[in-house]
Amino acid sequence: MTRQELYNIIKNKRSFLCVGLDSDINKIPKFLLKEEDPVFEFNKRIIDATIDYTVAYKPNIAFYESRGVKGWQSLEKTIKYINSLDQKVFTIADAKRGDIGNTSKQYAKTFFDPESSGLDFDAVTVSPYMGSDSVKPFLEFKNKWVIILALTSNEGSYDFQYIQPQVPAALERFGIKVKRESRKKLFEQVMTKSLLWGCNEENTMFVIGATKVEMLAGVRLNFPNNFFLVPGVGAQGGSLQEVAEAGMNSKCGLLVNSSRGIIYASDKEDFDIKAGEKAKDLQMQMEKFLFYSKVL
Amino acid sequence: MTRQELYNIIKNKRSFLCVGLDSDINKIPKFLLKEEDPVFEFNKRIIDATIDYTVAYKPNIAFYESRGVKGWQSLEKTIKYINSLDQKVFTIADAKRGDIGNTSKQYAKTFFDPESSGLDFDAVTVSPYMGSDSVKPFLEFKNKWVIILALTSNEGSYDFQYIQPQVPAALERFGIKVKRESRKKLFEQVMTKSLLWGCNEENTMFVIGATKVEMLAGVRLNFPNNFFLVPGVGAQGGSLQEVAEAGMNSKCGLLVNSSRGIIYASDKEDFDIKAGEKAKDLQMQMEKFLFYSKVL
Repeated sequence: MTRQELYNIIKNKRSFLCVGLDSDINKIPKFLLKEEDPVFEFNKRIIDATIDYTVAYKPNIAFYESRGVKGWQSLEKTIKYINSLDQKVFTIADAKRGDIGNTSKQYAKTFFDPESSGLDFDAVTVSPYMGSDSVKPFLEFKNKWVIILALTSNEGSYDFQYIQPQVPAALERFGIKVKRESRKKLFEQVMTKSLLWGCNEENTMFVIGATKVEMLAGVRLNFPNNFFLVPGVGAQGGSLQEVAEAGMNSKCGLLVNSSRGIIYASDKEDFDIKAGEKAKDLQMQMEKFLFYSKVL
Repeated sequence: MTRQELYNIIKNKRSFLCVGLDSDINKIPKFLLKEEDPVFEFNKRIIDATIDYTVAYKPNIAFYESRGVKGWQSLEKTIKYINSLDQKVFTIADAKRGDIGNTSKQYAKTFFDPESSGLDFDAVTVSPYMGSDSVKPFLEFKNKWVIILALTSNEGSYDFQYIQPQVPAALERFGIKVKRESRKKLFEQVMTKSLLWGCNEENTMFVIGATKVEMLAGVRLNFPNNFFLVPGVGAQGGSLQEVAEAGMNSKCGLLVNSSRGIIYASDKEDFDIKAGEKAKDLQMQMEKFLFYSKVL
């Protein structure tokens, strides 16, 4: 999917909601366990109930592969089902892969080459620790996207993502000039360096956690056109309004993810209806922010 | 597997060889394609031919999941086959996973909980970009191991892994004392910080690439007892002798991986025999280094 196509979906649905399919067989409603593939059945009903309010679906691969072969079957059925629908939506494999070049190539085949793997996603999340080789092989697929972890929403993000190569203040006190590049925190260096690898606004998004809204406005200034995938609204405590105010650009530029808040809204027969209500609720808030920011 | 058990295998086999099962269906000998599961058949014959010289096997998960459900079937059969053998070996899922806590928990189930996934590895490689949450859930499994990416063997390792938070020389010229912690490069911070997460020499190894042998001796000084998983000997250009000299400790402390050099030694009917010869060759060199370093 191209950036323009994604933007069109956002305008049509008046939403920038991504529904995270973190579908855990131990958490889905018990009555589904009698189905042949309970996780797929769960996903299918969630998708049917939420698709009017949703621009993207993001299966979290861990929840599938933890069930081994069966889990991969549920994943394959889920992505095929989404791709078979009349309403086009953006699909993200939340896999956080990253390895040396020849291995990243295999990961790209996993998520982008249905002839090889049976899966056909629009985008995959990638961890940048191993640098350029982790990202480049994904860029070779036309109209596919890499979503690079920059500033994540979790507690552990403070361990390394804020590391700065120098302490400019201390140095500049003594009249030592510090290069702009050297002032950047690790997550900012990840974003800047990716531009040297062939990443651009048509093939690359960045993960910026909703719990880091204090950094979001600054990041938007430096990357005015890229889409950001924003997890952490809801269960993790981020605020949708703050994210929209700090991060939205003229083509929206945001995909805000909600997983648990939607898919586990109820554990009864009505779980899909409740999920639809939660998604509609978020969509209506998002519509407001899209108007405020003149995206609509 | 405990550290002592691994050490016993190393002593018995006089080897610290890890064979990387980067088994690519497009690269295995063509005559195997008539088998029902060509990749498993390939792995089985490689394992049978190399196990006398090998202390660990490391399937590279990308090469399996790129074939979707079928690939996961090959992976499951492979690990079950290894675990069924009389000769015990250490098994590593080279997956480079890493995510927020509730997701990392699922990844731990994937590789450590056979009731959930069908897979039962001794260890899994983990990417540290997202910090503590990426690692902790794996530590809850007794006698299982997390292998944290520290300094990888690839070109992209220079992008971020050497980033230093301060420039001590410049600061100290002006009499500013720099805390020891602040002198550490990113990969050193990853290693040090992991100690705060519950990582120790009985549950944690680190990836240190063979192409970074200039750093290996220093790293060994700071982490005298941990095992290091060392990729990059062979196809990537690292030297076994240099790695052994710089990195070996009194209990060996090294697992040196070779993938392509062994498994693709021949693409004919004799591929397994040739793989066995290559493995034996490496084992004989390793035996020498184990004697020199008085591990044997």
